[in-house]
Amino acid sequence: MTNIYEQHLDRNPANHVPLSPLSYLERSALVFPDKTAVIHGVNGERSYTWSEVYTRARRLASALSKRGIGTGDTVSIMATNTPEMLEAHFGVPATGAVLNALNYRLDAANLSFILNHCESKLLITDREFAPTIKAALADLGRSIPVIDIDDPVYEGDGELLGEKDYEALLEEGDPDFPWEVPEDEWQAITLNYTSGTTGNPKGVVLHHRGAYLNAIGNAYTFNVRADSRYLWTLPMFHCNGWTFTWGVTAAGGTHVCLRAVDPAKIFPLIANHNVTHMCGAPIVLTMLIHAPDEVKQSFPQTVETATGGAAPPSAVIRKMGDMGFHVVHLYGLTECYGPATVCEWKDAWNDLSMDEQAAMAARQGVEYVTLESMSVRDPDTMDPVPRDGETIGEIMLRGNTVMKGYLKNADASDAAFKGGWFHTGDLAVMHDDGYAEVKDRSKDIIISGGENISSLEVEEVLYKHPEIMEAAVVARPDEKWGETPCAFVTPKSGANLTAETVIAYCRENMARYKVPKTIVFGELPKTSTGKIQKFVLRETARNL
Amino acid sequence: MTNIYEQHLDRNPANHVPLSPLSYLERSALVFPDKTAVIHGVNGERSYTWSEVYTRARRLASALSKRGIGTGDTVSIMATNTPEMLEAHFGVPATGAVLNALNYRLDAANLSFILNHCESKLLITDREFAPTIKAALADLGRSIPVIDIDDPVYEGDGELLGEKDYEALLEEGDPDFPWEVPEDEWQAITLNYTSGTTGNPKGVVLHHRGAYLNAIGNAYTFNVRADSRYLWTLPMFHCNGWTFTWGVTAAGGTHVCLRAVDPAKIFPLIANHNVTHMCGAPIVLTMLIHAPDEVKQSFPQTVETATGGAAPPSAVIRKMGDMGFHVVHLYGLTECYGPATVCEWKDAWNDLSMDEQAAMAARQGVEYVTLESMSVRDPDTMDPVPRDGETIGEIMLRGNTVMKGYLKNADASDAAFKGGWFHTGDLAVMHDDGYAEVKDRSKDIIISGGENISSLEVEEVLYKHPEIMEAAVVARPDEKWGETPCAFVTPKSGANLTAETVIAYCRENMARYKVPKTIVFGELPKTSTGKIQKFVLRETARNL
Repeated sequence: MTNIYEQHLDRNPANHVPLSPLSYLERSALVFPDKTAVIHGVNGERSYTWSEVYTRARRLASALSKRGIGTGDTVSIMATNTPEMLEAHFGVPATGAVLNALNYRLDAANLSFILNHCESKLLITDREFAPTIKAALADLGRSIPVIDIDDPVYEGDGELLGEKDYEALLEEGDPDFPWEVPEDEWQAITLNYTSGTTGNPKGVVLHHRGAYLNAIGNAYTFNVRADSRYLWTLPMFHCNGWTFTWGVTAAGGTHVCLRAVDPAKIFPLIANHNVTHMCGAPIVLTMLIHAPDEVKQSFPQTVETATGGAAPPSAVIRKMGDMGFHVVHLYGLTECYGPATVCEWKDAWNDLSMDEQAAMAARQGVEYVTLESMSVRDPDTMDPVPRDGETIGEIMLRGNTVMKGYLKNADASDAAFKGGWFHTGDLAVMHDDGYAEVKDRSKDIIISGGENISSLEVEEVLYKHPEIMEAAVVARPDEKWGETPCAFVTPKSGANLTAETVIAYCRENMARYKVPKTIVFGELPKTSTGKIQKFVLRETARNL
Repeated sequence: MTNIYEQHLDRNPANHVPLSPLSYLERSALVFPDKTAVIHGVNGERSYTWSEVYTRARRLASALSKRGIGTGDTVSIMATNTPEMLEAHFGVPATGAVLNALNYRLDAANLSFILNHCESKLLITDREFAPTIKAALADLGRSIPVIDIDDPVYEGDGELLGEKDYEALLEEGDPDFPWEVPEDEWQAITLNYTSGTTGNPKGVVLHHRGAYLNAIGNAYTFNVRADSRYLWTLPMFHCNGWTFTWGVTAAGGTHVCLRAVDPAKIFPLIANHNVTHMCGAPIVLTMLIHAPDEVKQSFPQTVETATGGAAPPSAVIRKMGDMGFHVVHLYGLTECYGPATVCEWKDAWNDLSMDEQAAMAARQGVEYVTLESMSVRDPDTMDPVPRDGETIGEIMLRGNTVMKGYLKNADASDAAFKGGWFHTGDLAVMHDDGYAEVKDRSKDIIISGGENISSLEVEEVLYKHPEIMEAAVVARPDEKWGETPCAFVTPKSGANLTAETVIAYCRENMARYKVPKTIVFGELPKTSTGKIQKFVLRETARNL
């Protein structure tokens, strides 16, 4: 039988356009041409309007196109949160190519592996990273064009390695370069390598459709609007700044750049530029809380602060609140464009105690409006776990803001997408209100005497101790129990802690079998993205 | 050469889901199960939670499916803004079928034409419209199942015509009906007939992709959030309530229903239910402004009020502001899911005089973030007009929130999409800041002595007269000049106007050639959607 709704009602250029975040910059340049798009420097040393950013991104696209860069090619960039890094998020995909933003904390061996794995055709690099990049390029076994970012706001040393600098490259380009969105919104837009704890990094391929949707999802969920000023405390290389590179641009807000997370810069930037929004891992929040008093500044506005990567301890949420930051908890991974779930606040929670509120806010929550579905499932049977707040399953995601897959890694892609869901590797429970709560990474769960112990739960208690700055708990092998919890603790300066007092504190605040049997004091090792390196601690615990 | 980004990186069920607003209801039921989703009645006589709306919509989908309704079928509904009408926006498309919401101001002949043109398989109808529907069904020449809406909030008469009522239909359905989004997001979701001024109405076919995007675009642009309460002053049949049916649902806000635009109901609803948002044609705003004092109520909140369909006169914007409503001006058509452009406010305008601000706000503005592009072009050459604020062209739209086309009307669809743009038929200028301003519908321009006169511009002046409530200006044939402007004016009660005083007032406020040569006092004829029927006035003017 004929379906009357499929007769002469096809897609055409007027009613169907591939979804791409490139459209957002075009619109902001049209709507807000003279409005400040980017500020860089505590005193606004550099700034560009939306019209200028659009022109600069078009020049970049044009210059790259002239050099033969196009669809299927990769352009790598090693940069902090500078105007150049933001422009690359538009100028590179506008040629059809894929932007590969490198993690600037990686070593030369990892970097040369990545540059070769993605067959990078050109590298843009900030002179801050000259030593590592020089070594990586020497290790490459082939020669690629290198362009330098010579940022006037940068105060440190660093050799210029390339054939020319970024501004000279822009001069090569046509300011009116007529870029087009790709013909297919499934086309790759960026390639982000995950900083895996073992083996070679995996290349996460994101697409234009997902970038468009997660960007508007972020702008909506986090309420970033045209009058918002977004401070770049989160690295842009970190899943493209959780897509806020494109999301703040969609809003026509203002990007406030920041080369490195330094409270001595963050507080004056917030005060001077009236910052309204920022993102960062809980470690960033901890740094702000523990900043010296002479660095801290007060400001009249409330800064909406999204955190993720790990659940913010309730004490952190509370202390940030006292300083003028309202913490929202997002959860996600590089594979899903950064934020995929949000701990959406409910009015009923306003009646809870402050501690209960913080515990609610520390949950990972519910799917973003632009993600199709989040679910906690048994990875073997693929059945959802009961909503009992106790049964542990794996967080699984499904929707348009999930990666295309891992580059040149069919096995890893197939494993990740098994059963029609993206497997996050994060273990969680589902509460009776439909909110998920991460209990641990698969490998972070501690099994002691046959009982599962969530290391996060033990850490949450430790973070509430008034003299503890940071804490991480891992499994330590034990002949009798199989494993026992081992806590690594960084005390606050001036603290007077002993293993005995910490253990006694834990006994008062958790079930006996969860209490760490071992306490180690000292600095915690971090990954390049600021996450605590539990695999290092596990290794240490094994050798104690 | 092999593109490495197209090797084993295909769409799969985990990373690609068709965009559909059905997903929004599923999410709100998950996130806000116990929150009030719908309120109906000044004292909240009926109300449903998000969980209940989801269950009711699933029951509806299930009951319709059991009756054989599915992909390619049409289900019509004749209803005011009631919970049933909202539920139908989810329950009908969830079967794969297309929802055809009928304009309840149409006559029986038009209705029977539509029901047959779209091959409607089932009609849901509110008993308020029994007389017209009875006549339309008698005229149909075939029999279709009819379901009655017997709304307890409805205070008037009306026969029950159908085989059973809506609540009994829901009883037939499975509350756990597992609906699926369509396999293809290009699938039709709704069919809205335009109330054409001549000839048979045209059936505008909208699709799931566009409905999803315009809904999130509306929620973002108009800042509808989970704590928003949206009052239904705009008919839901009017391009699906400009997609706010889906948009407020995406936000998880609260729909506040309203059967008819009556200031005596609107003010108490705003005050009792803490309404934060509403939409409506300028005539709705005029009704509120001119409501009797005993009906008006004050309220502490500001009601964000989107208006469109015609530019709001600056006096209306100002007077609404005095009453606690902040007017935002949107522009669009049924063919583009309602709003397609927004007069996005600029900070710099805050320094202008109140009159200048109102003039700025009365412009149609710039494209929505979810529309690809809006342009003012010469319809013959398809070249954009210069940004001079003077050269008149036609507003053209391009993007994912443009209809699939007109049902069974290939010629009209081809004409509408000629040259890769949707032709709106609205004449406008482009200002130097990239904001468009509608000057007239193609047929509303007056050509006098070879000069184009914008009837809107003349009307704008008339609206500023303190004794004029409404005004419309059309062309009157004239032997010497070809055409001259003829003004139809509704004075405020107690006004003391003559043709001479109105003409004298116009002479002081516009170029001489634009001054109406004829003034006619009286009520203005309106279309079923509240637009002034200029074709009736043109006819009158021709026969003067």
